[in-house]
Amino acid sequence: MDYEFRQKKASASLDEHHIDGILITHLPNVRYLCGFTGSAGALLLTHDSRTFFTDGRYELQASQEIENAKVVIKRSAPMQSAAEWMVRNGRKLGLGSRKPFKLGIEAEHLSAASAQRLGRMLPQGCKVAHTSIVVERIRMVKDAEELKVLRSAVLLGSSVFDIALNRIQAGVKETEVAAELEYDARQSGAEAMSFPSIVASGKRSALPHGVASVAAIPSRGFVVCDFGVILTGYCSDMTRTVHVGRLTPEARRVYGAVLEAQLAAIAAVRDGVSVSEVDGAARKSLQKRGLADYFTHSTGHGVGLEIHEAPRIAPGQTEILRAGMAITIEPGVYISGTFGVRIEDMVVVTESGCEVLTPTSKELMIL
Amino acid sequence: MDYEFRQKKASASLDEHHIDGILITHLPNVRYLCGFTGSAGALLLTHDSRTFFTDGRYELQASQEIENAKVVIKRSAPMQSAAEWMVRNGRKLGLGSRKPFKLGIEAEHLSAASAQRLGRMLPQGCKVAHTSIVVERIRMVKDAEELKVLRSAVLLGSSVFDIALNRIQAGVKETEVAAELEYDARQSGAEAMSFPSIVASGKRSALPHGVASVAAIPSRGFVVCDFGVILTGYCSDMTRTVHVGRLTPEARRVYGAVLEAQLAAIAAVRDGVSVSEVDGAARKSLQKRGLADYFTHSTGHGVGLEIHEAPRIAPGQTEILRAGMAITIEPGVYISGTFGVRIEDMVVVTESGCEVLTPTSKELMIL
Repeated sequence: MDYEFRQKKASASLDEHHIDGILITHLPNVRYLCGFTGSAGALLLTHDSRTFFTDGRYELQASQEIENAKVVIKRSAPMQSAAEWMVRNGRKLGLGSRKPFKLGIEAEHLSAASAQRLGRMLPQGCKVAHTSIVVERIRMVKDAEELKVLRSAVLLGSSVFDIALNRIQAGVKETEVAAELEYDARQSGAEAMSFPSIVASGKRSALPHGVASVAAIPSRGFVVCDFGVILTGYCSDMTRTVHVGRLTPEARRVYGAVLEAQLAAIAAVRDGVSVSEVDGAARKSLQKRGLADYFTHSTGHGVGLEIHEAPRIAPGQTEILRAGMAITIEPGVYISGTFGVRIEDMVVVTESGCEVLTPTSKELMIL
Repeated sequence: MDYEFRQKKASASLDEHHIDGILITHLPNVRYLCGFTGSAGALLLTHDSRTFFTDGRYELQASQEIENAKVVIKRSAPMQSAAEWMVRNGRKLGLGSRKPFKLGIEAEHLSAASAQRLGRMLPQGCKVAHTSIVVERIRMVKDAEELKVLRSAVLLGSSVFDIALNRIQAGVKETEVAAELEYDARQSGAEAMSFPSIVASGKRSALPHGVASVAAIPSRGFVVCDFGVILTGYCSDMTRTVHVGRLTPEARRVYGAVLEAQLAAIAAVRDGVSVSEVDGAARKSLQKRGLADYFTHSTGHGVGLEIHEAPRIAPGQTEILRAGMAITIEPGVYISGTFGVRIEDMVVVTESGCEVLTPTSKELMIL
C-alpha cells in the first residue's frame, strides 16, 4: 500500500481543516495511513512530520509494519506518549510562537474523557480542535491495491455463501447456518467475519438486524443471509434472501420488487451522481410497487477497512459519488410479523457507472 | 435479571457523583440496566424516572426486552431523542429552578463530538457533567443470575477447547484451529466469540496478542490458545498453552513457572484483598524463577457483558476485590523470538478465596 501518498494527502488537508497537525487515534485510520494492525497506536501528522506511538507489546510488530513514520515506543498509552513527545519537541513544532498550534483530534472517535485528558497533557501553546472525517474522506476512494483486496474479500464471501446454501433447510437452526458460513470463511483464510452474521428466517426475516438465533428455519418462508468476511483487513458485505418451501404470490411479488429496486439503484450509480439520487432510485422503484413504506433503512454505505464507512447512501445525504468508491446497494422490504427480503451487492463506482463485485446470482432461489 | 434493583443502585449513586441524572449510552451498560440488546438505545436515569430511547427499527424488540423503564420511540438517534425529551419535560426535571440540572454522561464511552452535540441540544438550565465508571462499578460484582450465565459460558468454552485440541498438530494452520473452536462454539449455541481467537504457535506464541494467522503449526513448539464465547450476552475467557513435539528442558521450566505464578495469583484472591496484591503474587512467583521481566501485561481483568471490564488486576491499581466479582487470572511469559506461555482461568471471588470456573486441566499437554 502506498502509505507515503496517503500521508501526503492527509497532511495536505490540514489547512482545509484549519489545524497544524492531527493526532490519529481511530485504529482503521492509523492502519490506513501507516500500516499498523495492532490494537494500541496513534499517529501524529503535521505538515512535515509523521510520528507513530505504541507500547512495548508492539515493538516488533511496529518495526515490521510501520512505513514512512518515526516509531516511538513507550510504556504509557499511545495518546499520552504523543502528548509527551509534543512537550519534548515543542520547538520543532513551532510552539511558543505567537500563534497557538492547533492539534486536530478525531472527535467522532475519541471519547470525551480522553479528549479532556489530552487537553491537559498537551504543552503550552497547543490547543485541541475537533475534527470530523478527515481521514475517512480520503479513505472513501479506494486505490488499486485496496480494490484488489476488496475484490478478493467479496469473492471469498460469495464462495462461502455457495457452500452454506447447502445447509439451509427447514428444521436447521439459524446459528447452524451462521456456523457453516463462518467455518468455511475461516477455513478459506478469512481473518474474521465483518460483523455478526445475520441469518433470519420466517417471520424473523422481517427484522433488518436479525442476527442468527437458535430458531429453527420454518418449513415455508424467506431466509435472509447477510454477512461478510475480512481479508487482509478489508471487509466484504453481501445479502441474499432465499426461500424455503412453496412461495405465496405475495412473497414472489415482494422479492421481485426488491430486486427491481436494487437494480434501479445500481443503474443510478455513476461518478458525479449524489448518493441521495442513488437512494432515491431504490425508493422510487419500491414506491411504484406500493412498498416504499416498508423500506426502513438506507440504501447502502461505503465499505473498506471498516464495514460501515463513508459515504452513506441515504436520503438527505449530499456526498457525490466518485470513481473508486466501494459501496453496498442493499434495499429491503420488511413486513412486520410476516416476512422480509433484502438483496445486497458491493459495487465500485466508475466513470461511466459501476462494477458489481458480488458474483452471486440474484435469481430467487427456492430450496 | 433484576433490572429494578440495578436501576435503584444506579439512581442511588447519582448524589455520590454530584449529578441529577445520567444518560447511559454505552450499550453494555444500557443492557445491564434495562435488558435492551439492540445496537441503538440510550437510558436516561434520574432520581425518580427511567426513560429508554430507541428508533423505529427496535420498536418491537424494545417492547419485548425493556423492563421497568418508559420506552420512547423516535426517528432521531437515541441521544438526540433523549435531549428532545428533556426539553419537553423540563418542568418534571425541575429545570428552571435556581440550581442547574447536572446531566452525567459516560465520558469514557461517548465521543467528544457527541458530547459536544449533546451539550448544544440540551434544554436551558441543564449542564453536561463527565462521569466515569458509574455503572461499571455496579457491574463489577455479579449477581446470582449473572454468575449462572457466566458459569455456562465458561463451561461451553472449555468443552469447545476439548474438541479443538484434536485439531492441533504440526502442519495445521492456526486459522484452522480457530475455525474449529469457533464452529464448535456456534454449533453449541454461542452467540459469538468474545474476541478474535488467539492461536499462536512456535515463535508466534511469544506474541501476547497473536491472533490466529495462516501460519502452519511447526513440528515442535508451544501453541497458545486464548479465546472465549458469548452466551446470553456474557463472555467467557480462557487460555491454555499446549506443546507440539518434544519439549526442551527450558520450555518445561517456563511452563512450570507460569503455572506456579497462576496458582499463586489464584491463591491470593479473596474478598477484601487489593487487585495489586493479586497481581503482585503472580509477579513475585515469576521473579523467583528469574522470569518477571518476561511477564509484560497485567494479571487479569473483570469479565461479564464485556470481555474486558473493571477491575484491572494490575500493578498500581487500588480496587479491592469483593465477593461476586468475576475476573481472569492469566500470567504469561514471552521470550521474544523463542516462545511464550500463558495460562488463564476465570474465577469468582468469594468471602474465603475464590471459585475457579474453568474446569480444563492445566497439566502440560504434549501433542
